[in-house]
Amino acid sequence: MEPLKRKRYAELFAPMQGELLRMARWVENTGQRLLIVFEGRDTAGKGGVIGDIARTLNPRQCRTVALAKPTERETTQWYFQRYLAHLPGAGEIVLFDRSWYNRAGVEKVMGFCSDAQYHAFLAQTPVFEKLLTDDGIVLCKYWLCVDQAQQEQRFAERAADALKRWKLSPIDLKARTHYDDYGRARDAMLEATHTKNAPWTLVDFNDQKRGRLSLIRHLLDALPEMKLAEAAIELPALGHAPKREHFRGPVKPIRPFQID
Amino acid sequence: MEPLKRKRYAELFAPMQGELLRMARWVENTGQRLLIVFEGRDTAGKGGVIGDIARTLNPRQCRTVALAKPTERETTQWYFQRYLAHLPGAGEIVLFDRSWYNRAGVEKVMGFCSDAQYHAFLAQTPVFEKLLTDDGIVLCKYWLCVDQAQQEQRFAERAADALKRWKLSPIDLKARTHYDDYGRARDAMLEATHTKNAPWTLVDFNDQKRGRLSLIRHLLDALPEMKLAEAAIELPALGHAPKREHFRGPVKPIRPFQID
Amino acid sequence: MEPLKRKRYAELFAPMQGELLRMARWVENTGQRLLIVFEGRDTAGKGGVIGDIARTLNPRQCRTVALAKPTERETTQWYFQRYLAHLPGAGEIVLFDRSWYNRAGVEKVMGFCSDAQYHAFLAQTPVFEKLLTDDGIVLCKYWLCVDQAQQEQRFAERAADALKRWKLSPIDLKARTHYDDYGRARDAMLEATHTKNAPWTLVDFNDQKRGRLSLIRHLLDALPEMKLAEAAIELPALGHAPKREHFRGPVKPIRPFQID
Amino acid sequence: MEPLKRKRYAELFAPMQGELLRMARWVENTGQRLLIVFEGRDTAGKGGVIGDIARTLNPRQCRTVALAKPTERETTQWYFQRYLAHLPGAGEIVLFDRSWYNRAGVEKVMGFCSDAQYHAFLAQTPVFEKLLTDDGIVLCKYWLCVDQAQQEQRFAERAADALKRWKLSPIDLKARTHYDDYGRARDAMLEATHTKNAPWTLVDFNDQKRGRLSLIRHLLDALPEMKLAEAAIELPALGHAPKREHFRGPVKPIRPFQID
Repeated sequence: MEPLKRKRYAELFAPMQGELLRMARWVENTGQRLLIVFEGRDTAGKGGVIGDIARTLNPRQCRTVALAKPTERETTQWYFQRYLAHLPGAGEIVLFDRSWYNRAGVEKVMGFCSDAQYHAFLAQTPVFEKLLTDDGIVLCKYWLCVDQAQQEQRFAERAADALKRWKLSPIDLKARTHYDDYGRARDAMLEATHTKNAPWTLVDFNDQKRGRLSLIRHLLDALPEMKLAEAAIELPALGHAPKREHFRGPVKPIRPFQID
Repeated sequence: MEPLKRKRYAELFAPMQGELLRMARWVENTGQRLLIVFEGRDTAGKGGVIGDIARTLNPRQCRTVALAKPTERETTQWYFQRYLAHLPGAGEIVLFDRSWYNRAGVEKVMGFCSDAQYHAFLAQTPVFEKLLTDDGIVLCKYWLCVDQAQQEQRFAERAADALKRWKLSPIDLKARTHYDDYGRARDAMLEATHTKNAPWTLVDFNDQKRGRLSLIRHLLDALPEMKLAEAAIELPALGHAPKREHFRGPVKPIRPFQID
Repeated sequence: MEPLKRKRYAELFAPMQGELLRMARWVENTGQRLLIVFEGRDTAGKGGVIGDIARTLNPRQCRTVALAKPTERETTQWYFQRYLAHLPGAGEIVLFDRSWYNRAGVEKVMGFCSDAQYHAFLAQTPVFEKLLTDDGIVLCKYWLCVDQAQQEQRFAERAADALKRWKLSPIDLKARTHYDDYGRARDAMLEATHTKNAPWTLVDFNDQKRGRLSLIRHLLDALPEMKLAEAAIELPALGHAPKREHFRGPVKPIRPFQID
Repeated sequence: MEPLKRKRYAELFAPMQGELLRMARWVENTGQRLLIVFEGRDTAGKGGVIGDIARTLNPRQCRTVALAKPTERETTQWYFQRYLAHLPGAGEIVLFDRSWYNRAGVEKVMGFCSDAQYHAFLAQTPVFEKLLTDDGIVLCKYWLCVDQAQQEQRFAERAADALKRWKLSPIDLKARTHYDDYGRARDAMLEATHTKNAPWTLVDFNDQKRGRLSLIRHLLDALPEMKLAEAAIELPALGHAPKREHFRGPVKPIRPFQID
């Protein structure tokens, strides 16, 4: 299957943007709290799909949360505590770029947590998530799939492309040799945490653009009917000639970037 | 001057992305704290330039802060307090999509603060910012300019385009008739807060893409030489055929989005 | 039974202070997280026993948390969220002066929450608390009992004594006529949330001083053996005559309070 | 001068408690923000006077802030940032048990900060505090004095008394030999930060009880007239015999503490 072209993607994504905005209006008008978790293999394309959703919506309503590693004090607190501070309030949408599921993925595979911590996580997570969804929070969890051939190709691109090299951490490089371990860890995670109230959705991201469309389409279809009449906006005539920027003080705009 | 085409923009922006990444490495390796404030007229294009910078960088290093309106308790605290919680720590980059300068712009023009609060703000801000820059925080402040003809055209587009309508708040509509007031408020703001340690840079955003290039070029040039040798990354051969996603449990990827 | 005299109380409390300090050392040296919840009827004496514990311990280790009413945004969040921000980290002791149990007491009796919220609370709380205790947090919950005759006497004292009047809120006054309702609400709370891992302890506070001793004795006995050899501290001789405060600048101590 | 007896202290403190409560009502009714900083030599008696104020007031209005040492990330932030999170909102009283002045005392004397950080602190603090007081925050700063003879006696008591030993940190022990250095550091601090809008008050705590009375008297006199008619509280008759605690479930109060 040929990868989707950028232009074709834009054409297909545009109507979904309208639906995402309808979703956001629904969240706002009905006081919903929408929490979307994005997980998946390295290079799968989490950042891309998060970015496409986020740039469509009002940043004052829709926040992306990408937590850095915990402080020393945080590592001694209840594992979920530092994530909880970012849960949505009424009318808010929160996109988690990675999440508490770190423990079931990279921490498990690379040995960054103890076995006891790992098993405690698998036991606690469905209980914890049920508390949230019983409270009315809408929780959607996506896991992005990619075959190793694709992953290798993207790693190679990242290594070769200075613009993408920051996406290659030393841990990513080590993780290359653990493709199967990550798969097994994902399966164990699914078994423990794919629940009725907070199910996982797996999305094929071997073609990232197609993957984005699949994911967003699924998200929109998963939410209830969100038909909300949108108030039309009328712009009355200005009544005068439009004005130009005028600077009374000494500070003026800089010289624009020159293109030959 | 004809507006810059998307493709031409991409060509011109790409090398700047490399420089932005170099900037980010410099921030990380030298423990800098970089704080960039984006202000400007409605429709000027803050979101676009912030998005272009943010998507280039690691979201775990570079955060965008777009605060919603304060809670009742926050309105009784020191005005700067809720912004201070988001200041960068060592190695971090923070992009403020609007900022404490709300008080000198929309609050002043639309009468959302008292005269006393406004004048206190103009007096406190340069002092407050000097504390930050004396502490070593690098503070860059950009104000995006746009003439009313352009602004009207963008308002009209927003009103007509369902995808952009969320950007049109009732306050924006009221603000249309205050173009000159906003200009005067900006000039007063510049007079009070354009300081040596925290100067403003005005950028012409009548052509948004050109404006982005101007702003980012200026930012990169404003920072000190940031030459940091970047470690090359070698990807050793995998040593086996690349694996494919394999799902042991009942949860499988959803059917991809179908394109006719 | 005659109320315990202040002096006798001090004699009996002093050895417990030593044990409380031993407890605090145990918490610190073994990285425990100790969370103690104090609930009970109005006037029962929560503040007194909390104060006696807190003043015995290092305020940098032992925090008292007495949350004011939630902000509007907080009321839309997950009910437990604002309390979670105050959970202890390793080596810390947190005393909750009232807690999430507000919902099962005053909110239920005075109609400040819906029936659905109330029942959700009773269902969620044992699950939520089990997450904390399974994570290793030591959670002790005390409910302070007092008969209405005593309560009335204390209300009367508070009304008469300017120093205590702040303790009498309008809600307290209304609550007087709901003594039985509070009792029933407590019994329902016990039935739902008196669990093996987070049991309630009821303490008779008809005599407040005796109640304090009962509660603290119970707390100390409930925790595991905490024998920790305490390093003796040697103070070497100073080697010179002790110095006196000497003020080089113009600011001098104020005139001491004059006692006739 | 003979030290004040406990009983005499209680007699003299009682009327001040009434005034403290009047102060708290004034803070609440007029939306004041009151911030009181307590600094001084080790053993001077900060904890005692803070405790006496705090136990007199409503803990939901008056918070004590005793920050533990900063996390690693906090040490890279703006020095004042972690304190700022605890500033009072309208109607609130905050007592700082030590404060940002750590840098001018223990950090300076014991070499925990660089010379540059120390001098930056002395330069920034009056500016920073002026921002707060210009914003309307009422800032009172107390420094508690004690001669070395007294200090030595208290150190000896702390070493000998298991109940007080936690107050003796290894740093305290080292600090004994730096009595003069602390005095000099205090004088430098006074010279730099004793300002018109945020003056220091020095209080002799060689007799701690007398010191408390001096400090609280000064505080009350320093604030403006706070005459606020206090609503009298009427307790209507109950209308029935007072009820007794009655437990329907299996959980009963524990056996009271037994006194021979």
